[in-house]
Amino acid sequence: MKIFVDMLTAHTIKTIQSLDKKKYRQKYNLFLVEGNKIIKELPDSDYEIENLYSVNPENLSFKTEEIEKILPNELKKISFLQHPKDSVAVCKIPENKILKDVSIQLILDGIQDPGNLGTIIRLADWFGIEQIICSNDTVDVYNPKVIQATMGSFLRVNVCYTDLEEYLSTYQYPTLGTDMNGENIYKIEFPEKFSLIFGNEGNGLRASTENLISKMITIPRFGKNQSTESLNVSMSAGIILGEIFSKK
Amino acid sequence: MKIFVDMLTAHTIKTIQSLDKKKYRQKYNLFLVEGNKIIKELPDSDYEIENLYSVNPENLSFKTEEIEKILPNELKKISFLQHPKDSVAVCKIPENKILKDVSIQLILDGIQDPGNLGTIIRLADWFGIEQIICSNDTVDVYNPKVIQATMGSFLRVNVCYTDLEEYLSTYQYPTLGTDMNGENIYKIEFPEKFSLIFGNEGNGLRASTENLISKMITIPRFGKNQSTESLNVSMSAGIILGEIFSKK
Repeated sequence: MKIFVDMLTAHTIKTIQSLDKKKYRQKYNLFLVEGNKIIKELPDSDYEIENLYSVNPENLSFKTEEIEKILPNELKKISFLQHPKDSVAVCKIPENKILKDVSIQLILDGIQDPGNLGTIIRLADWFGIEQIICSNDTVDVYNPKVIQATMGSFLRVNVCYTDLEEYLSTYQYPTLGTDMNGENIYKIEFPEKFSLIFGNEGNGLRASTENLISKMITIPRFGKNQSTESLNVSMSAGIILGEIFSKK
Repeated sequence: MKIFVDMLTAHTIKTIQSLDKKKYRQKYNLFLVEGNKIIKELPDSDYEIENLYSVNPENLSFKTEEIEKILPNELKKISFLQHPKDSVAVCKIPENKILKDVSIQLILDGIQDPGNLGTIIRLADWFGIEQIICSNDTVDVYNPKVIQATMGSFLRVNVCYTDLEEYLSTYQYPTLGTDMNGENIYKIEFPEKFSLIFGNEGNGLRASTENLISKMITIPRFGKNQSTESLNVSMSAGIILGEIFSKK
């Protein structure tokens, strides 16, 4: 570990700040990871650190990485958090990810909210689900709000973007879509190998996606009031995964 | 319905803005409900509207209420939302709520995050759970962020604050606490009548609460990685309620 102290240049600050936008993440092929807790897991992951900035490099016991010691007011300038943590790692976005052959995977059709995607990745990690396939218009996994919401779980779940229609038309196993009018999740048998599909927060699944799905499933509402709002997509994912794994 | 147009006085604006703080909500005995969708449900609920402000009163087909038509820039001043909706209702905080005798209820021991409390109230409503007992230091249900996160479900769930230690020492039915080292939720039988207890986001259940609990339960982690962050409290509540109701 080599610690060095240098003032952040205006150019560096500007570049890092631009990583808030997908356009610039793609241009530089970089994204941000914040906080020692998650940063400490990076050396054991597939992710490569390009630059590492910290107000307390002593707390990061890395062997090979160079750490640039920065001041709290510099950290404030490069952090996307309202309350910046200790360190910021600028990481390389991996080249084309390889689709894995897994028994249960999630498919997301146009999820827009970074918090929802982050929470779903964290959930997937909890249940040992290793892969999430996203439609190309799903929010970017390298969006700083998504990365933050995963609490480090993005390191362990393979999140891939693809043309869903194309993907689903060649996918060989059952696909279960979730909406308000499907079969009761408590009354069906889940297959051994399948994909569980969630749609956009406001509009649900696209018709073009729904056409390619084997079965629609629903969490029954036990409350009697009709005006009760349907559950949020990440909460639905949690409850359905909970039910799938109750039988494992 | 009587619509009248008047400029909001600086005093009114200041009073409404102060309802962001518990101290002032208690002083005036008032809280805010935003958005026509939820406001339309108020006349059929136990809540009484003190004042109703709207940029489009025509869309609120109320019989008895007086509605004050305001301008979008006035709405901006009295709304707590980043993107204000159409209307703001100033409602009366009900006097002492009466505890109901229900079969399944939730108990919250020091939940701090308004989003978590709101989400848990929304979940309770989905599953038809009519009562949530909160420790006195749990975030206030009339906090505007809580009300917003419930998506109207606060109208249907009885949320009461009390001294938990005192309450639990006289409560007659089984109490199930949730933490990382309890019995597997998939391997236990849930009683007919009981309370499900969740602790603070960072610290879990207080020792004084845990001492009074019949059994601790846990959602098993299926992912193999030890560094996977434990699930957020509202997500845990969703998964456990999902499991309880899978047997109903």
